[in-house]
Amino acid sequence: MDSRLDRIIEFCRVIDREKFVTRRTYLTDGERLENDAEHAWHMAVMAILLSEYSNEEVDVLKVVSILLVHDLVEVYAGDTFAYDEEGKKTQRQRELDAADKLFAQLPEDLCVRMRSLWDEFEQWETKEARFAHSLDNFQPLMLQHASHGRAWKEGGRKLSEVLKRNEKSALGSKELWEYAREHFIEPELLAGNLTDDTGEAGR
Amino acid sequence: MDSRLDRIIEFCRVIDREKFVTRRTYLTDGERLENDAEHAWHMAVMAILLSEYSNEEVDVLKVVSILLVHDLVEVYAGDTFAYDEEGKKTQRQRELDAADKLFAQLPEDLCVRMRSLWDEFEQWETKEARFAHSLDNFQPLMLQHASHGRAWKEGGRKLSEVLKRNEKSALGSKELWEYAREHFIEPELLAGNLTDDTGEAGR
Repeated sequence: MDSRLDRIIEFCRVIDREKFVTRRTYLTDGERLENDAEHAWHMAVMAILLSEYSNEEVDVLKVVSILLVHDLVEVYAGDTFAYDEEGKKTQRQRELDAADKLFAQLPEDLCVRMRSLWDEFEQWETKEARFAHSLDNFQPLMLQHASHGRAWKEGGRKLSEVLKRNEKSALGSKELWEYAREHFIEPELLAGNLTDDTGEAGR
Repeated sequence: MDSRLDRIIEFCRVIDREKFVTRRTYLTDGERLENDAEHAWHMAVMAILLSEYSNEEVDVLKVVSILLVHDLVEVYAGDTFAYDEEGKKTQRQRELDAADKLFAQLPEDLCVRMRSLWDEFEQWETKEARFAHSLDNFQPLMLQHASHGRAWKEGGRKLSEVLKRNEKSALGSKELWEYAREHFIEPELLAGNLTDDTGEAGR
């Protein structure tokens, strides 16, 4: 019963829970928050369409794979809000524990493969990880603007927080980061949905 | 303003709507129906984990790309329920019109690329398309069983309908189809959530 295929299928069943992990970004209709599975799907499609904007030429399957699995540990660890400073203190340990528990359910070779994709993302060291992070930052900025900055407005977010969160966004794609500043962040500053506490109006 | 990047980003914003297209399969908690984006994400991860079970060796990036984009046309055409015989009569034309409208929003080269991925899926001719279809059938069967056949029970589904829907499932993966019959379909027949109208008890 506990065959290789059984174990893989059981893992596939368990990760269904990623659809229940709610993020803090509203979808384009501004009514409902996005979940992790939707977020991962959206970015994987975007990786295929936008890979030419990576600073360095990337292995697209690697980027897509990283993006598809990068939030799986949240099945056990939950989503840690990007602006939750308390939650972020324990995030790394919670996610390491979750990764140990989750990936061990797979046959050894697949466990190593999935874990290494997640580690690669976490370590920011390869060009594929850097581009994946750029998209992981770009996609919610796009949705923030599409939903008229609702989550920023509700959270009383400040520009300095958004810039801090994005301090490494340009490492994977300078062009996408500049696009996001100009087309997603600046209009929300102008609309008053994001507070400019830098005196720079986003520049 | 209407630069290449603008057009790609606008497309990425439009496809956010895939998260609002509801399917007829319950998630593992049996409480909420799945949406197209969640379904595509789940299968893309499954393609990475299960490609060794394809009847033929496949280009995994191709399979993943096909799965990520195969339901995009439903952004305009809506989901056609697998057992809706009336809806299926107009499905092909509605989806062709949707594909024309949707992909034309991309720059020409990307329009051709995305359209060809969708056409490839629709035509069932390549080994990647066949394996993608196998997963597209396998994943909802897995969720049906995980949600105790709720959608089958509510719809009064019969085994003959499920077998008809899956008549080509083995073309991409004989092993996954056999696994699904044994582990997902037969238990729901035994539990009475799916009606055996074939006299074969699923065999």
